[in-house]
Amino acid sequence: ALAAPALAQTAPEVRWRCASSFPRTLDTIYGAAEHVSRRVAAMTDGKFQIRVFQAGELVPGLQVADAVQGGTVECAHTASYYFVGKDPTFAFDATVPFGMNTRQLNAWLYSGGGREALRPFFERFNTVSIPCGNTGAQMGGWFRKEIKTVQDLNGLKMRIAGIAGQVFAKLGVVPQQIAGGDIYPALEKGTIDAAEWIGPYDDAKLGFNRVAPFYYYPGWWEGALNLSFYVAKPKHDELPPAYREVLESACRDATLETMAKYDAQNPQALRQLVAAGTQLRAFPREVLQACYKAAFELYDETAARNEAFKKVYDNFRAFRDTQFQWFRVAENTFDNFVYFQHAQEQRGAAGEQRR
Amino acid sequence: ALAAPALAQTAPEVRWRCASSFPRTLDTIYGAAEHVSRRVAAMTDGKFQIRVFQAGELVPGLQVADAVQGGTVECAHTASYYFVGKDPTFAFDATVPFGMNTRQLNAWLYSGGGREALRPFFERFNTVSIPCGNTGAQMGGWFRKEIKTVQDLNGLKMRIAGIAGQVFAKLGVVPQQIAGGDIYPALEKGTIDAAEWIGPYDDAKLGFNRVAPFYYYPGWWEGALNLSFYVAKPKHDELPPAYREVLESACRDATLETMAKYDAQNPQALRQLVAAGTQLRAFPREVLQACYKAAFELYDETAARNEAFKKVYDNFRAFRDTQFQWFRVAENTFDNFVYFQHAQEQRGAAGEQRR
Repeated sequence: ALAAPALAQTAPEVRWRCASSFPRTLDTIYGAAEHVSRRVAAMTDGKFQIRVFQAGELVPGLQVADAVQGGTVECAHTASYYFVGKDPTFAFDATVPFGMNTRQLNAWLYSGGGREALRPFFERFNTVSIPCGNTGAQMGGWFRKEIKTVQDLNGLKMRIAGIAGQVFAKLGVVPQQIAGGDIYPALEKGTIDAAEWIGPYDDAKLGFNRVAPFYYYPGWWEGALNLSFYVAKPKHDELPPAYREVLESACRDATLETMAKYDAQNPQALRQLVAAGTQLRAFPREVLQACYKAAFELYDETAARNEAFKKVYDNFRAFRDTQFQWFRVAENTFDNFVYFQHAQEQRGAAGEQRR
Repeated sequence: ALAAPALAQTAPEVRWRCASSFPRTLDTIYGAAEHVSRRVAAMTDGKFQIRVFQAGELVPGLQVADAVQGGTVECAHTASYYFVGKDPTFAFDATVPFGMNTRQLNAWLYSGGGREALRPFFERFNTVSIPCGNTGAQMGGWFRKEIKTVQDLNGLKMRIAGIAGQVFAKLGVVPQQIAGGDIYPALEKGTIDAAEWIGPYDDAKLGFNRVAPFYYYPGWWEGALNLSFYVAKPKHDELPPAYREVLESACRDATLETMAKYDAQNPQALRQLVAAGTQLRAFPREVLQACYKAAFELYDETAARNEAFKKVYDNFRAFRDTQFQWFRVAENTFDNFVYFQHAQEQRGAAGEQRR
């Protein structure tokens, strides 16, 4: 007689709907929410079910934060910087221009006080935000003409959103907000001069290489992009403790999984793009420096008039300041040497083939 | 009446013992197994319990693979390269000199076919190996004298194990196998000239900076170190499916967690070491190049006489060959610019303070 309530208590059926900000065709990012759904079900013998809906099925992709806050859905999967129009503080949960790379951002979020710093901010929206997926460093996007000086940015119509758009605007770029599916025709017709999306694997699927010859790097506005699993706070609170832990681990699992998937697929996609004629270009250092200056000016201006932003920014920046010496010494010197040596080898092998 | 068997079936009590290869004082790496233990318990309402024992409590640290294979314990937490004496193929589950960095190694293991390539090898040992924790790029260790040329390696007595020791031996180094706790006195007395351990956070706790002035980078033999959670295959097979999934996600969680912990703590430890007088030194490029050449010669020699090694190495190397172009373009240029710019800023700020 005691067993039945015990079962009901330890393993109740929970069914949630998750509104994704992304289309199903974006198998990398959209796939992170599906990964969570699969993992949560697998870890609870199917008792905890999360059904993922692509952008537009339940609510438009950019309204998922409202849907969670208002209780329309229990949860959502999104990139927090979509909501900088509500409050620029959201950006720290995703990425900021010239911020940190993936390892550093994860270190801040998981072990450096980042999540704790963001928690009170998200409580204002009745939302719990769990890191869930990362794209790694993105590309700087597709350009119809080369960018050789800061002056070349003046009047450039570029599809780029949020804080990065504001930074670019300080240098004369005219930022355009265009949904993923509408970028190709705009770039083809020349309505816009440039567009950024994600990286080789996702970009190639949209075919931007057919309408813009120059592919710039680095995507200085997204040295990493942390994606977020939003849960309505009351729903999170009422979850059985074991399910809450299952959800947390599933989201961490999704972070590792999306990163591994991108890292396995981007290299091949980049190689194919280059083989098909795409021309890689680095942003000139003077352009990067002008953008860097503009970015940190923007953060200071924003911090001066937004207390929440200032609080999180101070925490973020202090952590970032401690990171770079170590990363330069150990990771960066290992990477630099191995890449250099490998490139020498490849050139050597190509030379031998030619002989 | 039906409920009790259902409960028993879906949530049986499982108690495992995990033999760690590490001492409890190594809170970073030893902590990964404890993290798994905590997460697994939290996700199953305490039904699945894994008790972690430090090296020597159940079996000596370097005998945990035998203990799992022989059924003395259900599971273990270790670094697979400890077992290269059994078979050098184990190394690919941990790291090889000049291999890949953490992101790349994870991409190979989780999404590039690495785990699949290693599975048949581990089946020979009746073991399932689950990635579980990573140290990131390690340091090149502590030296009593500077290394300026390849000749300076000749006759150098260095505490360094496994494949890295074999590579160094090709250049005249005399590798020494010394347990963590015995390194300090050997370095202090001059019984050895150099010793590598892990990185700033772990090394500082052992006080090596007090007995060797030069701290070298990069640790080219460990651009990443994947740690492994070994499970006796019959035990893994008989685990209820949900618990198997819980264990997998807990191990992925531990990978993210240890990385974040190291990345949050190594920077501060390095800063403190440098402030206390430690002198950072980069291995000269000619030394790195000689070691690189020796490493790949060793892999070719080993592959020629070991079929299992060849199989995994071919897979590993093909994946590695595809990775670097992409990582140079996106991640490396982002890192290089941001580190450069940040260092300029810091120098600027220091200059202003002096004025």
